[in-house]
Amino acid sequence: MQLVTGGAGFIGSHLVDALVERGGSVRVLDNFSSGRASFLAHHEGSGAVEVVTGDLLDRDAVIAAMKGVEVVHHMAANPDIRLGVEITDTDLKQGTIATYNVLEAMRQSGVGRISFASSSAVYGEAESMPTPETYGPILPISLYGASKLASEALISSWVGTFGAQGYIHRFANIVGPRGTHGVIFDFIHKLKQDATRLEVLGNGEQEKSYMSANDCVRSMLHIMDTDEGAANLYNLGTGDTCSVSRIAEIVIEESGLEGVSIEYTGGERGWAGDVPKTYLDVDKLLRTGFEPSAMSETAVRGTARALIGEIGL
Amino acid sequence: MQLVTGGAGFIGSHLVDALVERGGSVRVLDNFSSGRASFLAHHEGSGAVEVVTGDLLDRDAVIAAMKGVEVVHHMAANPDIRLGVEITDTDLKQGTIATYNVLEAMRQSGVGRISFASSSAVYGEAESMPTPETYGPILPISLYGASKLASEALISSWVGTFGAQGYIHRFANIVGPRGTHGVIFDFIHKLKQDATRLEVLGNGEQEKSYMSANDCVRSMLHIMDTDEGAANLYNLGTGDTCSVSRIAEIVIEESGLEGVSIEYTGGERGWAGDVPKTYLDVDKLLRTGFEPSAMSETAVRGTARALIGEIGL
Repeated sequence: MQLVTGGAGFIGSHLVDALVERGGSVRVLDNFSSGRASFLAHHEGSGAVEVVTGDLLDRDAVIAAMKGVEVVHHMAANPDIRLGVEITDTDLKQGTIATYNVLEAMRQSGVGRISFASSSAVYGEAESMPTPETYGPILPISLYGASKLASEALISSWVGTFGAQGYIHRFANIVGPRGTHGVIFDFIHKLKQDATRLEVLGNGEQEKSYMSANDCVRSMLHIMDTDEGAANLYNLGTGDTCSVSRIAEIVIEESGLEGVSIEYTGGERGWAGDVPKTYLDVDKLLRTGFEPSAMSETAVRGTARALIGEIGL
Repeated sequence: MQLVTGGAGFIGSHLVDALVERGGSVRVLDNFSSGRASFLAHHEGSGAVEVVTGDLLDRDAVIAAMKGVEVVHHMAANPDIRLGVEITDTDLKQGTIATYNVLEAMRQSGVGRISFASSSAVYGEAESMPTPETYGPILPISLYGASKLASEALISSWVGTFGAQGYIHRFANIVGPRGTHGVIFDFIHKLKQDATRLEVLGNGEQEKSYMSANDCVRSMLHIMDTDEGAANLYNLGTGDTCSVSRIAEIVIEESGLEGVSIEYTGGERGWAGDVPKTYLDVDKLLRTGFEPSAMSETAVRGTARALIGEIGL
């Protein structure tokens, strides 16, 4: 049995799909704060996926969910980086403390293997790009990034102290069908409200790596198949970047709308804690033999198409 | 007004001494879990030090302590790394959550400058030694190290999101008068119980950097005087190391006891989560013009002498 926390969420539900495709039995633990039952609806009746509604801050629920589990894929978190500016304890609770509860429940239940959805946000404004896993010092600038780094540290300390095996995946921006947040999602909602103009936060020159959710979960599982180390840390991305202004153009192209004016709010970052540029060095991932099926711009275009279909314009 | 959390503790009280010596007004916030009133007794009646008994998990107490404060020196934490093996939420609460409470109280009170006692424990078992601040990836192996890295991340995210100024000091093993834990303290207590033998946890080949508490707090303040960056991270140490077996010899020499047999429990580490070797690269510190007054072995010997005087043999 494999447990996926946040398995009803955006990336979590893609991971559930990939695990089921490989023939595994999956338990999902989700509080449905941003996850949706519809993201798992296609597994209903298959017998492969058990869905448990529960919160990671409820320790009894977490311990109960560990029964019969060999591997935990810890995907649950607050998905909205910007929220930390307004409510400062969201990432502490739903990130750091939730991860502690998962690890402690694993220890108490004898579950020894964890795979964790970390983020390129841990790097903050890295001075060297593309940024390899060996980059330091790591100084996140968002509360979200801080909670991801805190969770990584908890996992590596569990590995070092209690003999667990940990996989830490530092995600680029992950995009795809079922996206519930992020720049492409926001742009489509903005165009739905007003089809004549598209407001872009910042100057549009923000530039990040985008990876499809499908490539993301395939690479996570590939790493777990190939690396037998105790504490395994990988950047997951495509090895290239796409700018926010290019994303705006792609979303407008895919929308089929004509004459949309792109309006920039200005400034190098979209909000306090936004990292203007992230560019992950993914050589370590590629050396495992994994090949992404879509580079950043292709992943963005495919996502724009899928989300326009889901959201409607 | 400068606030020192944990100011009645071992290193905290040395920092209070240094701040008072510079003519500052100091408020100490301490829950006296490991701090002692006697460590600050020499300031009684001077009017320079206000002592507040309060816990960092009590948010109201933390906010009250911020009144009139310009700089927070956040020294409070669980001082015993080994405790994490037994009680897994000590470092989460007294480390990570306590730091969050300090930062949030600063934000709410408009206090913008924080100096933090981090630790070489964040590096875990670094593959490169001496280990510079740019080393990565950072994978702590103790829960204590994880809480220090989590606290660093919270501070850098506060700097990045709310415009605070942060100083992160990664301490080598700090030793000196008033020590309440650690290898020298333990050895003296063991000799007090049985003057014929000294049990050493591990094979004695563990090797770490030792810095005197006086040098530690002087270097903290020196960095704050000289580096005006937003997020400033430094290793604090002496640039050399001392082995545990050498410490055993020094403590026995200073004890004046004859014919003590040193007995090793064996194994490369003293306990689960013990890092066998730490050796900090302190070039960045030395480039600020700071010079340690004592190298590792001298700091260890001075500490052994002072603690034998305090504890009695």
